[in-house]
Amino acid sequence: MEPDPAPNRIDPHLEVREKRRGLRPGDAYVRIVRPFESEFERGDEGQLVATSETLVIPAGWQRSLGRVRGWLIGKPISSEREEHERLTKLKALAVFSSDNISSSAYATEEMMRVLVVAGIGAFSLVMPLTLVIVAVLAIVATSYRQTIRAYPNGASSYIVASDNLGPPVGLVAAGALLIDYTLTVAVSVSAGVAAITSIVPGVFPLRVYLAVAIVALLTIGNLRGVRESGTIFMAPTYLYIVAVLGLIGFGFFAIATGMVSDYTPPASWVAAEESSGLGMLGLLLVLRAFSSGAVALTGVEAVSDGVPAFKPPEWRNARTTLTAAAVLFATLFLGISFLVSWFGILPDPDEQQTVLSILARHLTGDGPYLVLVQVATALILTLAANTSFADFPRLSSFLARDGFMPRQFGFRGDRLAFSTGIVALAALAVVLLVVFQASVSALIPLYTLGVFVAFTLSQTGMVRRWWVRREPGWRRGLLINGLGALTTAVIVVVVAASKFLAGAWLVMILVPILVSLMWAIHVHYRRLEQAIAPRSLRIASVARAPLVIVPIARLDQPSIEALTFARSIAPDALAVHITNDAATAATLRQQWRELGGGAELVIVESPYRALIGPLLRYLDALQRQDPDRRLLVVLSEVVPRHWWDNLLHNQTALRLKLRLFFRPNTIVADVPYHAPEL
Amino acid sequence: MEPDPAPNRIDPHLEVREKRRGLRPGDAYVRIVRPFESEFERGDEGQLVATSETLVIPAGWQRSLGRVRGWLIGKPISSEREEHERLTKLKALAVFSSDNISSSAYATEEMMRVLVVAGIGAFSLVMPLTLVIVAVLAIVATSYRQTIRAYPNGASSYIVASDNLGPPVGLVAAGALLIDYTLTVAVSVSAGVAAITSIVPGVFPLRVYLAVAIVALLTIGNLRGVRESGTIFMAPTYLYIVAVLGLIGFGFFAIATGMVSDYTPPASWVAAEESSGLGMLGLLLVLRAFSSGAVALTGVEAVSDGVPAFKPPEWRNARTTLTAAAVLFATLFLGISFLVSWFGILPDPDEQQTVLSILARHLTGDGPYLVLVQVATALILTLAANTSFADFPRLSSFLARDGFMPRQFGFRGDRLAFSTGIVALAALAVVLLVVFQASVSALIPLYTLGVFVAFTLSQTGMVRRWWVRREPGWRRGLLINGLGALTTAVIVVVVAASKFLAGAWLVMILVPILVSLMWAIHVHYRRLEQAIAPRSLRIASVARAPLVIVPIARLDQPSIEALTFARSIAPDALAVHITNDAATAATLRQQWRELGGGAELVIVESPYRALIGPLLRYLDALQRQDPDRRLLVVLSEVVPRHWWDNLLHNQTALRLKLRLFFRPNTIVADVPYHAPEL
Repeated sequence: MEPDPAPNRIDPHLEVREKRRGLRPGDAYVRIVRPFESEFERGDEGQLVATSETLVIPAGWQRSLGRVRGWLIGKPISSEREEHERLTKLKALAVFSSDNISSSAYATEEMMRVLVVAGIGAFSLVMPLTLVIVAVLAIVATSYRQTIRAYPNGASSYIVASDNLGPPVGLVAAGALLIDYTLTVAVSVSAGVAAITSIVPGVFPLRVYLAVAIVALLTIGNLRGVRESGTIFMAPTYLYIVAVLGLIGFGFFAIATGMVSDYTPPASWVAAEESSGLGMLGLLLVLRAFSSGAVALTGVEAVSDGVPAFKPPEWRNARTTLTAAAVLFATLFLGISFLVSWFGILPDPDEQQTVLSILARHLTGDGPYLVLVQVATALILTLAANTSFADFPRLSSFLARDGFMPRQFGFRGDRLAFSTGIVALAALAVVLLVVFQASVSALIPLYTLGVFVAFTLSQTGMVRRWWVRREPGWRRGLLINGLGALTTAVIVVVVAASKFLAGAWLVMILVPILVSLMWAIHVHYRRLEQAIAPRSLRIASVARAPLVIVPIARLDQPSIEALTFARSIAPDALAVHITNDAATAATLRQQWRELGGGAELVIVESPYRALIGPLLRYLDALQRQDPDRRLLVVLSEVVPRHWWDNLLHNQTALRLKLRLFFRPNTIVADVPYHAPEL
Repeated sequence: MEPDPAPNRIDPHLEVREKRRGLRPGDAYVRIVRPFESEFERGDEGQLVATSETLVIPAGWQRSLGRVRGWLIGKPISSEREEHERLTKLKALAVFSSDNISSSAYATEEMMRVLVVAGIGAFSLVMPLTLVIVAVLAIVATSYRQTIRAYPNGASSYIVASDNLGPPVGLVAAGALLIDYTLTVAVSVSAGVAAITSIVPGVFPLRVYLAVAIVALLTIGNLRGVRESGTIFMAPTYLYIVAVLGLIGFGFFAIATGMVSDYTPPASWVAAEESSGLGMLGLLLVLRAFSSGAVALTGVEAVSDGVPAFKPPEWRNARTTLTAAAVLFATLFLGISFLVSWFGILPDPDEQQTVLSILARHLTGDGPYLVLVQVATALILTLAANTSFADFPRLSSFLARDGFMPRQFGFRGDRLAFSTGIVALAALAVVLLVVFQASVSALIPLYTLGVFVAFTLSQTGMVRRWWVRREPGWRRGLLINGLGALTTAVIVVVVAASKFLAGAWLVMILVPILVSLMWAIHVHYRRLEQAIAPRSLRIASVARAPLVIVPIARLDQPSIEALTFARSIAPDALAVHITNDAATAATLRQQWRELGGGAELVIVESPYRALIGPLLRYLDALQRQDPDRRLLVVLSEVVPRHWWDNLLHNQTALRLKLRLFFRPNTIVADVPYHAPEL
């Protein structure tokens, strides 16, 4: 092909029309060549479609970073593949119900840790409290079955409360949920680490590092995308369920045959726990124990939140999964509480062993079954934490879509995951783990309140929905959701009152702060939206050319290239030299004459050595002669080879750019100079 | 005046030619109006001269900041007034010799603090050591008189060593001096604070804060400019000289009349100092005591460094000042050492009182004369620190001029002071004060080495100069400078060996690091210089217009303005929309048709949701069709009202700009959008 000097030989559609001169006359034809087809394919209406080739970073440290990233996170997934990333019921149970089911690993123990204040005798209350909590779970689960049906596109408390009680109430639910999800990660990972230290006491001092490492693994796993995390984590849930059910079955068998005697705790534990006991069992203490046990209900929300991730029919599958999860959980929780009460298990005052591991050791000895139970527990708790890694980013994306959180939370990453939400959750959880030293008991008081606030608001929303819509069966629905709302509202009051000083106060401060922040973000986005709305859908057909100004410090190659660029778009471009040195000005004037080229040079002497002030005032003086005409300031800048090179060049260009950025009617063009040998 | 639609009605020389239509025929004439005369006056050859009006910041927080700055630092001074800022001998003695003279306030004490290790008996060595140090001072001062004469434009060790021994040796001297100046500030301010705590023990716990406050005051004073600091600080130097001379005179009178008995130290001090004493007086200890006392020679350099700040004839005035300073210092140092030895004064083991204050209290009682001596001491030490605030920035500016330090160090601020150097010195001194808790004894071991390295290199340079030039009197000059170089070289070895573990090692590491750093900076600047040298002094007369590309996310007002700008400079501007959403693409295509305006829109679908990768590859694809043509990428950006607004907008534009900045042949123009109601 012969070179063509015409400036418009570039085809924006990346096609080249090649005129072939045939061998015989009349054979000439035009052939369309698409030299960039590997990067840009043809789409509808002449659109171009970028292939994954365009994601390759050509060279440099960014490429190395990209490779590490690709190895950790996986190759990018095209948006088209989104539909396929759905979960079967079996997988969904593993992904969404593990949070709820795994609570059985610590719910009994957390009740005991409160009751011990009243002495070992108070442990007789463990079984009655367990029954009450299971009853509450039954009410809430039944109530949520309705919600899932009503909101097949995702029954998050945020959506249900916003929809029926207005966005401000929805934001309260959202704030409570965000806190809840973060605590789910911290509590579950802490409990998972506790399951490990129960059988490997040597790693107890390393528990915080271990917990942070688990969060890091979960982060990477989730950045890879939801389907894979479902596959990876399915086995542990069922392993835990089978292992603990087996333990409970063996416990009942042992009771029936009398083959296992009662538990004999270490004398030091009894002494420690008796001495700490006040011997008084007040109502407040019972309520506190109940509040700690109510942690068992966390995770019910998760299933309804995740309805759209189910295979169709989404709402029906989600409902079935919810019921299955609740029944499984209740069985495990009741069984563990019963056996612990029957055999007289005590909690370890140092938190080095969990109650579940003491029970398993008592029943099956220090053998492989104990190890199986503990490993399964650690794995399902990790999976529970993983639930939040699905929910937190999804809720954040809803909030971002509605303009209540920064937009980044709404963007899907290379692997279709909401990367910003995943990373934010991991960071918050690590902070909690470090501050609370990965102690479940220290985290629990913060945990329950948020969950029950969200429950109450969601179910109250459903009550209003039934009342307003009066669809068939509304009376029954209203009754079920009303009972749920009432129950959880009572629990909110109980938790807030009984755990106030222990940590609930923090949540009661954080939720309003979060809500105000989200509201402020919303106001900002709305104002911006109005501010940038097009005033008229017209591009001025005869736009006036801008006045082009090139500030130059001296005649070096970068400024010559800036001048060349300026001349190429405006024949009347103006060079400005600000100086405090008459000698350099004279030299420049001389060079300028030799240069030719036709552009005018204005020299402004600055006896106060300032550069930016006089330049800006000079632009003002030009502008005031013709206020409507835009100014285009062309700056030349040497591209540094290393970031530290920037320290050696004075920051005048940067400061000037910043000042010009805030100047009305002024456009800045940056002509980078890539020094050949720098 | 009637509106004129022609685009070139703007006059770059800020003159307006007004055509007046007279009342009678033939009366019409052209009048030149200069509406911007208050901001830009007329200079030579049609140059404009910026008035101080151009320095006024029109509005906003920057203006408030500017006002605070103006109140602290003063109004800007024009470069023309530079010549007037010269010092008389009397003022120069105050400004440049205070460093040296003020050493008498602590030199005796620092020797004693070393000797005390060998027990109180070792204090008999104070007087002999003082005599040796005064002898060394005489040698060095005589030697420097020659240097000042040879280098009337400033006899800094850096210049003398570079000039005669080559730039690398000069850099070693420079590195040593920069460390020395920083330590002068830290040591002098610490000693000044000690003079205050001696009479007001209650402020002892606040000494670090006090020291930092003094550094802050010095910084502000020096940013105001050199003449004023000379005026402010002249009185204290002479006050100190008179007060201490009076004290010494009274001491001799008391000895002659026997009216004051020997000093009786507190029993606890004697016990503390006897118990710490090993009772052994080795050679190493004597050398250490000498090294500490040698601190008395710091500041000799200051006078020769500051030769250009003297009134003409500079070199003669500087020489006279140097001699006067040396004689004054020797008198004070000998007097104090003699009286301390005679009366048997002991140093306070807790460093709460200085030896000078104990002497003054012993001689004159706890009365007003004690307060006078202490206040004068504190003031002259502050002034000594001020010496470095003149020297460090000046040396830095020499180094910056020669390309060994970042260029900023070479720029004069509003008040003709080298602001960057002043601020850098203050920051370094504050770090030293905080780390060493404003303790003179802790800082001294780092101090002396740098000074004597610089002395040695400077005088060795002079020796070589005499030898090479053989000017009249070269034999005598060579002898004097040779003796000086030899003496100080011996002291370098003594200090390095005897103080190595106490802190000299740090200096021995820092100097090579500084030298390497300065050399690396020099190499960088030299390479840059070569890289940006103009390849030919020509602006292409027929420069090809760039291909203008406007990436748009949607059709809002900011992008419409970007498109308008693009159209105003290029009729074939191209809009590019990268999307992963077919629906928004269709909407945009529809809006585009309604928009008209003639620019072409290319839609690139990005199924992997990435924006930057596909855009850059698309630019590559365009570029490869015509590799020589420049690309101009026009970006629209909403100007945020508050800095935190940036957190809410995704950082894509910034990341894109960064990537484009490093792309060859690509110019980025930023069209800022000032939202009317944001």
